[in-house]
Amino acid sequence: MADKKLVESITSMEEDFAQWYTDVVKKAELIDYTSVKGCMVIKPAGYAIWENIQKNLDAMFKETGVQNVYLPMFIPESLLEKEKDHVEGFAPEVAWVTHGGLNELQERLCVRPTSETLFCDFYKNDIHSYRDLPKVYNQWCSVVRWEKETRPFLRSREFLWQEGHTAHATFEDAEARTIQMLNVYADFCEKVLAIPVIKGRKTDKEKFAGAEATYTIESLMHDGKALQSGTSHNFGDGFAKAFGIQFADKDNTLKYVYQTSWGMTTRMIGAIIMVHGDDSGLVLPPKIAPTQVMVIPIQQKKEGVLDKAFELEGILKSNYRVKVDDSDKSPGWKFSEQEMRGIPLRVEVGPKDIEAGKCVICRRDTREKTEVPFDQLDAKVGEILEQMQSDMLERARAHRDEHTYVAHNYDEFTGIFNEKAGFVKAMWCGDQACEDKIKEDLSVTSRCMPFEQEQISDTCVCCGRPAKKMVYWGRAY
Amino acid sequence: MADKKLVESITSMEEDFAQWYTDVVKKAELIDYTSVKGCMVIKPAGYAIWENIQKNLDAMFKETGVQNVYLPMFIPESLLEKEKDHVEGFAPEVAWVTHGGLNELQERLCVRPTSETLFCDFYKNDIHSYRDLPKVYNQWCSVVRWEKETRPFLRSREFLWQEGHTAHATFEDAEARTIQMLNVYADFCEKVLAIPVIKGRKTDKEKFAGAEATYTIESLMHDGKALQSGTSHNFGDGFAKAFGIQFADKDNTLKYVYQTSWGMTTRMIGAIIMVHGDDSGLVLPPKIAPTQVMVIPIQQKKEGVLDKAFELEGILKSNYRVKVDDSDKSPGWKFSEQEMRGIPLRVEVGPKDIEAGKCVICRRDTREKTEVPFDQLDAKVGEILEQMQSDMLERARAHRDEHTYVAHNYDEFTGIFNEKAGFVKAMWCGDQACEDKIKEDLSVTSRCMPFEQEQISDTCVCCGRPAKKMVYWGRAY
Repeated sequence: MADKKLVESITSMEEDFAQWYTDVVKKAELIDYTSVKGCMVIKPAGYAIWENIQKNLDAMFKETGVQNVYLPMFIPESLLEKEKDHVEGFAPEVAWVTHGGLNELQERLCVRPTSETLFCDFYKNDIHSYRDLPKVYNQWCSVVRWEKETRPFLRSREFLWQEGHTAHATFEDAEARTIQMLNVYADFCEKVLAIPVIKGRKTDKEKFAGAEATYTIESLMHDGKALQSGTSHNFGDGFAKAFGIQFADKDNTLKYVYQTSWGMTTRMIGAIIMVHGDDSGLVLPPKIAPTQVMVIPIQQKKEGVLDKAFELEGILKSNYRVKVDDSDKSPGWKFSEQEMRGIPLRVEVGPKDIEAGKCVICRRDTREKTEVPFDQLDAKVGEILEQMQSDMLERARAHRDEHTYVAHNYDEFTGIFNEKAGFVKAMWCGDQACEDKIKEDLSVTSRCMPFEQEQISDTCVCCGRPAKKMVYWGRAY
Repeated sequence: MADKKLVESITSMEEDFAQWYTDVVKKAELIDYTSVKGCMVIKPAGYAIWENIQKNLDAMFKETGVQNVYLPMFIPESLLEKEKDHVEGFAPEVAWVTHGGLNELQERLCVRPTSETLFCDFYKNDIHSYRDLPKVYNQWCSVVRWEKETRPFLRSREFLWQEGHTAHATFEDAEARTIQMLNVYADFCEKVLAIPVIKGRKTDKEKFAGAEATYTIESLMHDGKALQSGTSHNFGDGFAKAFGIQFADKDNTLKYVYQTSWGMTTRMIGAIIMVHGDDSGLVLPPKIAPTQVMVIPIQQKKEGVLDKAFELEGILKSNYRVKVDDSDKSPGWKFSEQEMRGIPLRVEVGPKDIEAGKCVICRRDTREKTEVPFDQLDAKVGEILEQMQSDMLERARAHRDEHTYVAHNYDEFTGIFNEKAGFVKAMWCGDQACEDKIKEDLSVTSRCMPFEQEQISDTCVCCGRPAKKMVYWGRAY
């Protein structure tokens, strides 16, 4: 039995989801608050998840030919201002450096909120001919956006992310890369994080400042709120014209390049918590869990028990990320800690088990227990981890589908959002005025125009005029 | 024969070492300059070296129990000011954020030049009992120091590094960790980067702002100038007292913790260039080279040549980082590029080789060529890479030893520094006035008091009073 004390100290999800989230983030030791308002410390248990996200995603990037680079964290104000829409989108929320050492700077520098302008400035010098294309660069770094309201992982003044920036000879090449990276994000979310996503395009109102088209993957949290989980932008040649990035094509004429950018952030750690967590704490998908198996000895002071626990660790460690909890806490307390931290499996082993030549595997998500002879442990752990990974995805998909509704008219639409939480599929005329009214009335935004369109009705759910697109609507983090 | 054009475009080392360095950095495509004064773009070829440095060093850290975390990039002015020596050392060279979005901040924030103060602020809340100790945390991040004169990798306003910060129950534990990490750095430099180092302690004049003792590893560049390559600091309980970091010890009394910090930076890429490079460009030690082997087809349009080149890549790629250069450039140009980029081995294969069932391996450092039958290629490449790695270390060590001199008195000392470049071993009385005079007279600084002391003479090389320590002196980057 898990010790109740640790668990009782967190609020239940049903009672207060926001407080549950904050409790889990603290008790699973992912985050600490700091003296720097709106910024956080990512503690070892949280950062290890980010390291695994980086490792997996970076390998997927490199398979598609991505190369990593590092650009400065500062952007001179004049550079930020070169693309009109972009500066309007970002200038209100950047941090400004005005002094270097003891001197005031001649031109102030913003701390990068994103690096399109820096990449453009770089590509302008680095691209000369069609032979230099495509450029498919990415950087792992931190960015700063001066948010007023912050929440651990989901919205903070500084966060970690990767930002890919590419340049191509044609619009088609840029569009293909934009979609390719969206698909990488979707695969990563579903296969590694066990989070199902909706792929689609953002409306003009919701697209990235300076983009011609923004594509997004949207996921649904346990409380029915949406989370934008990754975006991929096609800039056309807008930035290239603003920055003068030209290349000599095969036909010997000078042409502007076409560009893309795409990013995923530490907010995905928030998504893992809010999609998979439960009232005992975090539940980590096996593929991303820094520790996949915790071996917990029972009556560890009895002769042979600790030895056996380390022997099992020895058996498992060539194939899995495994640890033994040999601290002097009670087994119940150790169970609670392992559950709070979301470690996918625990292996319990005590004197009676040893006598019987077996141990017990307990799954974090279902609490299902399986007795396993020692000589079958390695294979069984693999099997259960794989099953758990796939069950978590299916459970999240079922939850999302159960919380995805359809509205044919505004009465139905408002009715659903007043009573329930989730995605609503409904038609839209294409006019931003309807998005504005829906946001004003219900605090609901268009999440995306999904690639998989359905014809829910013929008319816009808001204004009744002829419909152009089906949209996923939701309240978002 | 390597094509001369690419090579002729770089200045020779003997003629102008500084210009040679700048040429290599540009031509090997490691760096680009930016519109942000004093900041640089680390291009794919440069960043891939940093990724390998990170991978190797991070694994070595984790073997000693280090855990990674991430702390904010901003430090409130009041926090920076808490430790008197520390703020005096850093305040003159930090960048200040004064505005967030459209508002002026109530308190200005500096962009971290180093994170002792943030770690202290974090540890103050995170450490309560002796059970919480030691804390052995590290972060990989960028830092900013508002330097006036900058040089690629060696000194820039923003650079990448890792900074480890630990907290311990006793002074002895802190001292042991300080020395342990210095040894990790020394091992890394010698075994992975093939750069020999002198281990020692900094004089008080040269130690880190706020440290009780700073230990360093010092290496010698090809031009005879010294490079501080990694430092490890023991803070005693100075920061703990300034920040109030206390723990309840086993005896139930409250005690201050003892702390350390240690860092290594992207300047090590500069060290690799300046220790191993030659007039054809970069020479990368095999263990750190992003590409270890470049297969270059000769007469690649002839039937079977490209196929064979890719077949050789296939044979090698399970054990080595290997690529084929199948671009439409001439073999000579490809040789020059592979040499400029410092790729340790090239494998040449053409129609005649194929007929004879063999290819040619050419070592980047010595240009030595070895004919190898195809079926022995995999083993031979491993053997040559290993030999090259060890030869590079021995060559660098021999160069350093040939450029390490001994001075018994000030005449000898000034004579050497006026005519030669390198380390000078000489005795010192322990008085900072002598260091000041030597710096004033010769632009020479004390690099370290080496752990391996020798008794060169009985008197200080500068003032003639009784000597306390042997010091390595040099002109430094």
